[in-house]
Amino acid sequence: MPVNLPLPIPGALKPIAGLKLGIAEAGIKKANRKDMLVMTFLASAEVAGVFTQNRFCAAPVQVCIKHLSTQQTGKKIQALIVNTGNANAGTGEAGLQNALQTCVALAHDLKLEPEQVLPFSTGVILEPLPIEKIIAALPRAIANLDEDHWFAAAEAIMTTDTQPKAASLTLDTPQGKVSMTGICKGAGMIHPNMATMLGFIATDVAFAPGLLQELTREVADLSFNAITIDGDTSTNDSFIVIATGQSALTVQNRNEPLYKVVREGLIDLAKQLAQMIVRDGEGATKFITITVVGGKTAQECRLVAKAVAHSPLVKTAFFASDPNLGRILAAIGYAGIAELDVNQVQLWLGNVWVAKNGGRNPSYLEADGQAVMQEAEITVKIDLGRGTATQTIWTCDLSHDYVSINADYRS
Amino acid sequence: MPVNLPLPIPGALKPIAGLKLGIAEAGIKKANRKDMLVMTFLASAEVAGVFTQNRFCAAPVQVCIKHLSTQQTGKKIQALIVNTGNANAGTGEAGLQNALQTCVALAHDLKLEPEQVLPFSTGVILEPLPIEKIIAALPRAIANLDEDHWFAAAEAIMTTDTQPKAASLTLDTPQGKVSMTGICKGAGMIHPNMATMLGFIATDVAFAPGLLQELTREVADLSFNAITIDGDTSTNDSFIVIATGQSALTVQNRNEPLYKVVREGLIDLAKQLAQMIVRDGEGATKFITITVVGGKTAQECRLVAKAVAHSPLVKTAFFASDPNLGRILAAIGYAGIAELDVNQVQLWLGNVWVAKNGGRNPSYLEADGQAVMQEAEITVKIDLGRGTATQTIWTCDLSHDYVSINADYRS
Repeated sequence: MPVNLPLPIPGALKPIAGLKLGIAEAGIKKANRKDMLVMTFLASAEVAGVFTQNRFCAAPVQVCIKHLSTQQTGKKIQALIVNTGNANAGTGEAGLQNALQTCVALAHDLKLEPEQVLPFSTGVILEPLPIEKIIAALPRAIANLDEDHWFAAAEAIMTTDTQPKAASLTLDTPQGKVSMTGICKGAGMIHPNMATMLGFIATDVAFAPGLLQELTREVADLSFNAITIDGDTSTNDSFIVIATGQSALTVQNRNEPLYKVVREGLIDLAKQLAQMIVRDGEGATKFITITVVGGKTAQECRLVAKAVAHSPLVKTAFFASDPNLGRILAAIGYAGIAELDVNQVQLWLGNVWVAKNGGRNPSYLEADGQAVMQEAEITVKIDLGRGTATQTIWTCDLSHDYVSINADYRS
Repeated sequence: MPVNLPLPIPGALKPIAGLKLGIAEAGIKKANRKDMLVMTFLASAEVAGVFTQNRFCAAPVQVCIKHLSTQQTGKKIQALIVNTGNANAGTGEAGLQNALQTCVALAHDLKLEPEQVLPFSTGVILEPLPIEKIIAALPRAIANLDEDHWFAAAEAIMTTDTQPKAASLTLDTPQGKVSMTGICKGAGMIHPNMATMLGFIATDVAFAPGLLQELTREVADLSFNAITIDGDTSTNDSFIVIATGQSALTVQNRNEPLYKVVREGLIDLAKQLAQMIVRDGEGATKFITITVVGGKTAQECRLVAKAVAHSPLVKTAFFASDPNLGRILAAIGYAGIAELDVNQVQLWLGNVWVAKNGGRNPSYLEADGQAVMQEAEITVKIDLGRGTATQTIWTCDLSHDYVSINADYRS
């Protein structure tokens, strides 16, 4: 059961001028299921992406990185294709050829060059991509292309997700309105290290060349890179921002007010999408915000937040609504800050001050901790007492359903 | 259900001359349960220990480290006391006073100095130690002291363990026989970083001063530091070796044959005990040996082995007997070797060659992988193809029972 995960309302997802989405059932892993998405956009679009740091990065990720770099030579990205049911990872040279062949086939149908297509896959690792099923379904996806298909697109990229994840924003800027719509998927193997499983945001604003890539990385760090479900960094993480350039506005440089408004909008939308992934985390019953303050660096705050977020013992205690909060101290202690003075550490659960100066707060009452643990949304705040840096991570609990979902994943 | 975990036979556990064990029911957490152990030994004993690297290390660990260092000044360690049901960790200054007071009380009864006592605790973190219950039970434990109480001692230190863990060895050396007996406990919060939750090995051989500490660290690295259940490094990990010096033999230096025989014996016994902890891992249904070969350094082999061993997705696949082996590749890929060439990576499951040169082995048959996954004891071998270093880690799967045990731990 997802935790307070809003079901997107199809009519509330704003079309982004210059971008169309087409969905098809390719029958890649299961029959009668939308499992393929094609997006097309005009040559005015700027496209940027960040990808998994996993050394076993999937074949489509390798192709995306190559094609995005080719973009600088004038071959603008104008289409992308996503399949679920198969990750095309751990598939060696044959997998790479399959990813390229997907681009060749789609480019042919759209009258583009193969380098103008980005491929994405998600699903089982170490199994050959059924390329013939994908190619056979391409004409149906292309026939389905429409600016208004965001909701169906969000459905088409789901794997173990219990519901589609999508959101829209409109920004009012002094120069006029900017629209943004994003979709994402992911519920397990979630510990993004650059991006999440798959996330796509489009906006109608135009970007001057070169500005979008750095901003995309910054947005990823504050959103998809700040979530974890099980600590497993996927082979296929990809986060893409498409600026179609079809509004009247153009972001020219980092110092203008428009850049700042668009940046805030992208961060806001990406955070919403990233948090949706956690709310739909495999087996999740709790949505947990872990904020670490008082660190010397953001990096060490992140280390501590992730140690707490990854601890199976902390996660099962949240599942049980059991304020067994010593487990949080244990995780802080092994997070890797060699010279941490535990006597400076404070711990709050919600507004309840649990650990004071490294030990149990004398005025802490178990009943107060228990009351917070019963909530579906819980905030953990840790003060390291050694600086002014801070970091926030979002995660979920570890339940019986997580084990069931992942034990039965391929059946 | 433990995985092929031998129940120790009380009569087969060899007494170690010069060492006595006394057990009592102190009622620390639950009534009618052996939860306290006292060990005493003569002034001829050499004692060495290694302890958790967790910065939130428990009060008794801090006291142990201090008292072991005092040993060099002539105050030889002659007793230790273990309680279960409460870890005395995250308890601040009051916890430290409680650990010291335990030593004072036992030293008084045994006519020793407090510095000659080592205290150990295991159980819930962040709760005050019920010191008065421990002190009240001391006379009963002392009255119970006997050389032949190893089995009861192994029972007295259990927490979520399903059965006591103990083993004995006799070494035939050119100079005569050496006896060794060890006990340990631990089933969750197991990712030792210096030692395990609690492990004690005694031998009757004598050690020249200064030799035992380095050997103890080496033994720990090859045994207790090579296991993981859930990746959570405990606040209370302690591993102690006691050489009572009551046999006719003395280990004088590192170059003599006796040192090598005793070293091998200690490693053998410690490995047996460490593997018992994994076999009794919380909820374990599989015992998994992960061997990484072909690394540049043992450290990077260890990184890869631990990434695989800690992955919840790999662990749930083992629980399900599902050869979803791409998850192992994903874990290898995010283990942290930045320049890993995945095209050199080979993966075997048992004797089945699954991944060849970074992709699926063309001759791999799912049925062969499936057959291995059905076994209770599974070996994963990973060749990184970049050197000659190797490392082995033992772990278990992640099952519904792990979640149940840790969700219900305090109830």
